[in-house]
Amino acid sequence: MCTSITVRSVEGQVYYGRTMDYSAGMFGEDPGTPTSVITIPKGSQIKSQLNSWDSKYAVMGVATTGTVCLFDGINEAGLAGDMQVLMECSYASKDELAKRNLTGLLCEEFVTFVLTNFKSVAEIKEQIHNYALVDQAYELGGQKVHVPLHFTFFDESGAGVVLEPTDHGAFKVYDSTGVMTNSPEYSWHLINVRNYISLDNINRGKPKKLSDKLTLEPVEMGTGYGLTGIPGDYTSPSRYVKSTMVSSFMDPFKKEDGINQLYSAFRTVIIPRGLERNSAEDPLSDFTRYWAGYDISERRVYIQTCRGIGFSTMKLDPNQKEIKYTEIDLSNYSKELV
Amino acid sequence: MCTSITVRSVEGQVYYGRTMDYSAGMFGEDPGTPTSVITIPKGSQIKSQLNSWDSKYAVMGVATTGTVCLFDGINEAGLAGDMQVLMECSYASKDELAKRNLTGLLCEEFVTFVLTNFKSVAEIKEQIHNYALVDQAYELGGQKVHVPLHFTFFDESGAGVVLEPTDHGAFKVYDSTGVMTNSPEYSWHLINVRNYISLDNINRGKPKKLSDKLTLEPVEMGTGYGLTGIPGDYTSPSRYVKSTMVSSFMDPFKKEDGINQLYSAFRTVIIPRGLERNSAEDPLSDFTRYWAGYDISERRVYIQTCRGIGFSTMKLDPNQKEIKYTEIDLSNYSKELV
Amino acid sequence: MCTSITVRSVEGQVYYGRTMDYSAGMFGEDPGTPTSVITIPKGSQIKSQLNSWDSKYAVMGVATTGTVCLFDGINEAGLAGDMQVLMECSYASKDELAKRNLTGLLCEEFVTFVLTNFKSVAEIKEQIHNYALVDQAYELGGQKVHVPLHFTFFDESGAGVVLEPTDHGAFKVYDSTGVMTNSPEYSWHLINVRNYISLDNINRGKPKKLSDKLTLEPVEMGTGYGLTGIPGDYTSPSRYVKSTMVSSFMDPFKKEDGINQLYSAFRTVIIPRGLERNSAEDPLSDFTRYWAGYDISERRVYIQTCRGIGFSTMKLDPNQKEIKYTEIDLSNYSKELV
Amino acid sequence: MCTSITVRSVEGQVYYGRTMDYSAGMFGEDPGTPTSVITIPKGSQIKSQLNSWDSKYAVMGVATTGTVCLFDGINEAGLAGDMQVLMECSYASKDELAKRNLTGLLCEEFVTFVLTNFKSVAEIKEQIHNYALVDQAYELGGQKVHVPLHFTFFDESGAGVVLEPTDHGAFKVYDSTGVMTNSPEYSWHLINVRNYISLDNINRGKPKKLSDKLTLEPVEMGTGYGLTGIPGDYTSPSRYVKSTMVSSFMDPFKKEDGINQLYSAFRTVIIPRGLERNSAEDPLSDFTRYWAGYDISERRVYIQTCRGIGFSTMKLDPNQKEIKYTEIDLSNYSKELV
Repeated sequence: MCTSITVRSVEGQVYYGRTMDYSAGMFGEDPGTPTSVITIPKGSQIKSQLNSWDSKYAVMGVATTGTVCLFDGINEAGLAGDMQVLMECSYASKDELAKRNLTGLLCEEFVTFVLTNFKSVAEIKEQIHNYALVDQAYELGGQKVHVPLHFTFFDESGAGVVLEPTDHGAFKVYDSTGVMTNSPEYSWHLINVRNYISLDNINRGKPKKLSDKLTLEPVEMGTGYGLTGIPGDYTSPSRYVKSTMVSSFMDPFKKEDGINQLYSAFRTVIIPRGLERNSAEDPLSDFTRYWAGYDISERRVYIQTCRGIGFSTMKLDPNQKEIKYTEIDLSNYSKELV
Repeated sequence: MCTSITVRSVEGQVYYGRTMDYSAGMFGEDPGTPTSVITIPKGSQIKSQLNSWDSKYAVMGVATTGTVCLFDGINEAGLAGDMQVLMECSYASKDELAKRNLTGLLCEEFVTFVLTNFKSVAEIKEQIHNYALVDQAYELGGQKVHVPLHFTFFDESGAGVVLEPTDHGAFKVYDSTGVMTNSPEYSWHLINVRNYISLDNINRGKPKKLSDKLTLEPVEMGTGYGLTGIPGDYTSPSRYVKSTMVSSFMDPFKKEDGINQLYSAFRTVIIPRGLERNSAEDPLSDFTRYWAGYDISERRVYIQTCRGIGFSTMKLDPNQKEIKYTEIDLSNYSKELV
Repeated sequence: MCTSITVRSVEGQVYYGRTMDYSAGMFGEDPGTPTSVITIPKGSQIKSQLNSWDSKYAVMGVATTGTVCLFDGINEAGLAGDMQVLMECSYASKDELAKRNLTGLLCEEFVTFVLTNFKSVAEIKEQIHNYALVDQAYELGGQKVHVPLHFTFFDESGAGVVLEPTDHGAFKVYDSTGVMTNSPEYSWHLINVRNYISLDNINRGKPKKLSDKLTLEPVEMGTGYGLTGIPGDYTSPSRYVKSTMVSSFMDPFKKEDGINQLYSAFRTVIIPRGLERNSAEDPLSDFTRYWAGYDISERRVYIQTCRGIGFSTMKLDPNQKEIKYTEIDLSNYSKELV
Repeated sequence: MCTSITVRSVEGQVYYGRTMDYSAGMFGEDPGTPTSVITIPKGSQIKSQLNSWDSKYAVMGVATTGTVCLFDGINEAGLAGDMQVLMECSYASKDELAKRNLTGLLCEEFVTFVLTNFKSVAEIKEQIHNYALVDQAYELGGQKVHVPLHFTFFDESGAGVVLEPTDHGAFKVYDSTGVMTNSPEYSWHLINVRNYISLDNINRGKPKKLSDKLTLEPVEMGTGYGLTGIPGDYTSPSRYVKSTMVSSFMDPFKKEDGINQLYSAFRTVIIPRGLERNSAEDPLSDFTRYWAGYDISERRVYIQTCRGIGFSTMKLDPNQKEIKYTEIDLSNYSKELV
């Protein structure tokens, strides 16, 4: 499914990224809809399938080409975030929302709505109680889709929030621990990770006497034995635990190493193609279609797709004039040594 | 420590790679010796600290700058391989080797010796019984080092071999399963991986009735639950199991996706900085200093270091004239989107 | 801490048991208060530290000697149940409870209250919304104790309920899955167990081909490999998972094997002495002080203590005249073969 | 399959036991051969299917009724031991053994041979190089059986040995760590257990700060979190690890608690009926048919079968006159409280 992780440099810069795990194609590798980098100028009209609005901020992110539905993105104020699947997502009818005095939003347009309207996590937290998800499918290429989702946002201050639409379309709001994955609800993960309290990043290099008959000699000098018991699968609970532990136990780092350290925290949750099939016969599987990492201070995104090892990058340009879609490089883009 | 993995395209091309996990610096990130790409022309004299020899093949690989000691590499005949730490490594004195009618080699020069002398795994298997490791430390920058090692090689045919100097300096020879990590000996890993026979790459999407009182509903549609029980830590046994399962369960792929799929198999065993400390106070830790992936058919290497997310690449040039060292790019080398 | 498990014979008889895990002595093995079997006649006055009442049913169970505070027990109507530690337990003041129109009960007297007043799980579910736990410590031997608890009850029909006083003293009510352990709240365990959906009781006896280079041969004919990934520790979440899986995967059984099968389901969660120390120096540890298993149809209890391997047993006598305490056998009571 | 464990009191008394895990019936619960306690006087003739011999010692143990083939037992000198399945077991022909100057023994009669001929582990180690297993099936009830086996023995001094007939019928000899299970070979288990070097018996009761955004609060006061990562399944490698850790981390104990502590170490490896089926349809499964625990100093055995929770016991009588079979109690033998 998906994972988002945030890390912070010793100087305080925030680096945030997400994997997009999905069972349909995004870059021509499988049937699906093409995906590219979208850039939205400040003041653009966002044509919604519900109620259109104007963007207060310039925004850059990853989206289905031709739509204004961001999977993830960043705005010029330094707010960044993403959508991910959450099976426990709920919706409500327009009538219900009217009675509850809530403004309805479309699930698929939610990230775009937040990034074009809010400048910080604090502002989201102030406003989110006025909104809820409306029970209306999104039309995409002649088809109606309705993906159950939840959302996370981070800003330059290091603040982070998780928004889960599990209250009849309205949101439960959590302070982010720095990591979000998929089901179960965030409250469950917050408890689950406590079960891994004995994990650490210290090798077990000394022999351990168990009895007069047995002393355990460290294997390979005990390197890596502090993480005994951490799960290795790619399920949502395991990705939450792995991401939390890896990002917490990594060395402190300087801002010039930010994107590199962010990507380091992600490798263990980037899912290879073919590991999650619905059946042995099904040619499709859920895997990581792309990784996007945001250097929030620099308003810059780095993207690696499932098609190649190369990275693409783009910096948010606050002065552009119209909504634009830019293709992401899909090659093994590498520096040729001579 | 280190991991090597091999995958093969549906057309039969072989992609082989390795991580170099180490506790000393290689690219200026920590105290240590600088590392670069070395290219050795056919016919070069290899100046050994034991007995020098001439290279039969052009070779390209990764080495300590200024030495002819390859950590990993490929030759023009399409043979590729690497060295990794193995605590159970043994050596013998020159006198002993003479009595046993064995030719002594230095541990640190072994990969270079093989790649400059042999053209295939079959040839290695024919000749290896004539050689053994001699108990002589290697001089590097005024210091004597003696790292316990084992070795793996693959060739264009898909054949692979693991060589473990555990017989008083002489080698135990194993057919490679496609993966090698560190201690214990390879024979132990070959048994250990059998304990994971119940793992698969199929989701568990259907409810499971356990009793009249309990039916398990799949979490997040059961995605990823085929790998329940796979270990997540970075110890040598766990890296062997993870690499084997991930590389085996990945989708079949075409040659144009070879390097990308190879790297996909590696992410879960690339160790972030700081996860393997000897003590909470020790500023150094064992982590992945670089990844090198070889497209054997193309005689091309791709390298990613611990310093940046960018990849460098070089193709073996069989016509060069002298031994050369080329610096690896350490940046976040990425394609700028416009 | 504690575990309760229920199993059912093919004829429908219910067998329910619990472990009492605690860090203080109960049978002279450590400092603590003596524990014995208590029998309460129908009509006895139960002298409460809050509000005394008369028992509607004859009851038999395990209690601190001299008190009417049952740890677990059964009544003549065939209702059985126990108390266990739950850190998330809450209480409310008498004043608050009065405002909320709730009848206050003492945590320590709750099992006794239920077994002396109710005849079935259905009746508990009807009535429980009238009650809540009051914030008053219990006096025991001159000391005030206030253990945070939750409760489970089963009856002859096979119905089972979990009662968790997590709503400001009032109860959240869950249908029991047949198993209860300790923290986190029951709702968390109900989700957690779903993560083990891939476990089964089928051996993996056939070789599994992973690649051209590796086929996994079953170890020891693949016996036991269906449970790969089940946790082995004694924490509360792991005991819930182990108890659920073991009791669900066991063979169907006849009533004459009921107690034996119940005990079989329990062995893996009976905690040996010394495995759960607060520190290496602390002579005390949390471990299983006793196991009590109830043949509900027969109104009979079997007890094994931490002092010996022998079992004691007693049948509820509905005709006794006064509250009585009977010492439990602590020996290795065994049949001497001749 | 099977597990043997040894523990020792602070005074030095040795308590040794074994589980018998098997897929055929032993006590009428499934098709199979009846099993009882056998007692063999000193000087009895042991009628072998190969070469008969006279017993030097009085012996008591568990055997197929009517045969002299002990599954486990003890002799008057205080030597005790058992047989267990090992798939890697080898045999040799009589001719081969003659050439190798080795005395052939039948696998099924091996425990009996050792207990009737040797008085200590030291004596076994001195003599075992003279013996090997012969490739001759054993006739039992008109059928020929040939179970692949290995063996373990302990004596009053605390010495223990593992004998594995993996060298063309001859034995590899290991000092016992106190535990033996089944495949792979013992040398593999000795390495495998080292992978669990980070396990301990200390709770994790203090909050653990992972980052500015996340501090892990202990679940249930951190009780039991020292064993995070210990496997919970019943495979042979997992039973070896569980038995080793549990028996090593248990509290020191006095001799009067010996049998109780021995049984405590065993509960986690006593396999319930139905957990290890060859297929969902197969009515038979491998599970623990009986547990036998020996108080070596007292020359006394305690037995619990799969038919009931009760224990039987017998003390070796060195003065009896003839080979005798005594039925084991199969009931829920318990002390009736009054």
